[in-house]
Amino acid sequence: MKCEIIAVGSELLTPYRQDTNSLYLTEKLNEIGVAVAFKTIVGDKRRDLVNAVKTALGRADLVAVMGGLGPTEDDLSREAVAEALGVSVRRDNNIVVELAARFAQRRMQMTDNNLKQADVIDGAVVLPNANGTAPGLWLDTKYGNHRKLVMLVPGPPGECKPLFAGQCIPRLKEILPPRYIAKRVLKATMIGESAADTLLAPIYMKYPDVETTILAGNCEIQLQLFCTKPSLDAAQARVDELASRMEEALDLHLFSSTGETLEQIVLFYLELKRETLAVAESCTGGLLAQRVTSISGSSRSFLGGAVVYSNELKTDFCGVPPALIEEHGAVSPDVAEAMARGIRQRTGASMGVGITGIAGPNGGTEEKPVGLVYIAVSYGSKTESLECNFRGDRERIRQWASQQALDMVRRRLM
Amino acid sequence: MKCEIIAVGSELLTPYRQDTNSLYLTEKLNEIGVAVAFKTIVGDKRRDLVNAVKTALGRADLVAVMGGLGPTEDDLSREAVAEALGVSVRRDNNIVVELAARFAQRRMQMTDNNLKQADVIDGAVVLPNANGTAPGLWLDTKYGNHRKLVMLVPGPPGECKPLFAGQCIPRLKEILPPRYIAKRVLKATMIGESAADTLLAPIYMKYPDVETTILAGNCEIQLQLFCTKPSLDAAQARVDELASRMEEALDLHLFSSTGETLEQIVLFYLELKRETLAVAESCTGGLLAQRVTSISGSSRSFLGGAVVYSNELKTDFCGVPPALIEEHGAVSPDVAEAMARGIRQRTGASMGVGITGIAGPNGGTEEKPVGLVYIAVSYGSKTESLECNFRGDRERIRQWASQQALDMVRRRLM
Repeated sequence: MKCEIIAVGSELLTPYRQDTNSLYLTEKLNEIGVAVAFKTIVGDKRRDLVNAVKTALGRADLVAVMGGLGPTEDDLSREAVAEALGVSVRRDNNIVVELAARFAQRRMQMTDNNLKQADVIDGAVVLPNANGTAPGLWLDTKYGNHRKLVMLVPGPPGECKPLFAGQCIPRLKEILPPRYIAKRVLKATMIGESAADTLLAPIYMKYPDVETTILAGNCEIQLQLFCTKPSLDAAQARVDELASRMEEALDLHLFSSTGETLEQIVLFYLELKRETLAVAESCTGGLLAQRVTSISGSSRSFLGGAVVYSNELKTDFCGVPPALIEEHGAVSPDVAEAMARGIRQRTGASMGVGITGIAGPNGGTEEKPVGLVYIAVSYGSKTESLECNFRGDRERIRQWASQQALDMVRRRLM
Repeated sequence: MKCEIIAVGSELLTPYRQDTNSLYLTEKLNEIGVAVAFKTIVGDKRRDLVNAVKTALGRADLVAVMGGLGPTEDDLSREAVAEALGVSVRRDNNIVVELAARFAQRRMQMTDNNLKQADVIDGAVVLPNANGTAPGLWLDTKYGNHRKLVMLVPGPPGECKPLFAGQCIPRLKEILPPRYIAKRVLKATMIGESAADTLLAPIYMKYPDVETTILAGNCEIQLQLFCTKPSLDAAQARVDELASRMEEALDLHLFSSTGETLEQIVLFYLELKRETLAVAESCTGGLLAQRVTSISGSSRSFLGGAVVYSNELKTDFCGVPPALIEEHGAVSPDVAEAMARGIRQRTGASMGVGITGIAGPNGGTEEKPVGLVYIAVSYGSKTESLECNFRGDRERIRQWASQQALDMVRRRLM
């Protein structure tokens, strides 16, 4: 079954806005075995909209139209689909009553333009919208001699997604042959996309029935495993078998087997081992602390941190001896280690992290170039540091430094 | 002139990847007066691709095809466009020589599949690609009886954007009537989108020749002003006149008249006034420090900060008396003010910020609900605090708190 998604709205044809609902629709459709063959983005002009719908009916079996169901003059999806199918639109009194009740309940006056939302294409089933005024529509119809499934869903994500998942997908499932899907998401870090692929391709090639996607971004890679079988057990068994072989190959690079973030994993281990963390940051300027504290409940294991941009603060907050900075420079393994030890001691945390480096774009020298970062972790009786040479712009260097620091904490805790 | 953009690539039809190049192309096309009427996303299947190109040729005057120009079997844009136009493809020896030279220079062997990239559609002008192996193509041709401009550009953003801006746009400009464009971006914060529109609509409605777009996001609003006239002076004068009337209406909400970020503006004022800043953060957990230090050169004005999650650290790093926390609670105006004063004193900065609050989703009480945040700024002889009640999830509350803090710093400096 071939599917086309049409996103309607002139704002989606500007440089500023983008359709993102279709990613969610695609995910839900893929899960029941429907591939998306075309996506079309079209503005609020009736002629263009009719053209887009006719084109879609001509090349796809399933057409999902998102947006253009609201009360304004620009909202023309109902009219355009009816015109493309050569059928008419009638006003549905039940919907009118519901709309009136909705407005009354909110003590708002219902203006006449809202009545448009009670218009129903001939032959369509009305899909109630629990999160907004415009209901969706479902058509199981013909175009030429071919059966076509056409669904109209509202544009706002908060209405579009629940309506599509809750009402369109179950209807599609009834029509399509049954499928059972198993999914897994593995995450790894401090390994590049191509290195991961070189490592993993010989493994996943042996599982042609499991769809494997490698995604890289935010200093980590995600492995999405996806399998459909006539039974759920069979699908799950294949995904789990491939996942465990990949986990083995990725070894310490793997940080999550079920989709958690690196921050969540680090906090999980800290809590499990009843350890506490404190961080001293120079070039990352609070990014590491911000990432850890972005997780709810982090206060149970994270005591706090110091952003020590100036040398004076490195001494004052982390007890780094001025002589050490003088001798080795602020960007040095010695200072990173002193920061990690110092913040640990100062806060009473059982683990301390120190980061110092040159995030650029200025401040680099031949000896200490932009991207040079020292990261130290002090835990138990050992304080160890790592020299890193990150590439990219300031944001990317800082992101990598915070990622490497989190990963070092994770590895020390394991 | 009606334009359609076609993004080619099966990965763009998965739930994981999205075409973003088209936003850039749209911006460049809008600047020369070309509106985008349709965007189509299609996979690497030849039949679908030919269908998409024919559809576009049938409804648009200008068709930009992105992607599918590489060396793999899946790269079929050249063949599909040729088939749709009913013309043939020939191998261009000049491009073969260039490809060979490129590979030789990198001491890499050129595999045969790379020769595909030397294929040129009959009648096309070759657009050299400085950033990759696959050149672009430009066709000024006919479809039926209608003149059609068709351009093929590579998919990777680093190749697509410079090639489109550098070679397609100048060619289009020669064909289209001359236009002069003036643009301005104003930014304001701590004002909602609808409040801003209520305030500004009566003003910009009087400038129908200036296109005004209000965008909301990241706790701020952007006003994009855009005007085309037969002369640049005339366009600039209209944009500047509207901008200055809007600036007046927005008053203190306006923080940037030429597109700078709030962080940049704060650092600009700090440097101008030769002040230095230090921050003490509880619920924002380093986010404020991270935002300030994301700007290169921030070390000139930003001394550092403390992330003081625990009460002990509030006392140790910011000198907040334990009795004060005991009496008022950690989330209180008194503690926020003590943090601001304390971090200022401790670091020797001329300005201190203290933030304490409940970011949620847990930890709220009836008296002190999730979203309650106290922000204090200590500067000169005055320490002032503000009680805020932010809505939304943890991330949103933290984002708003850091934004409000930056804005308070900005206003105190003005």
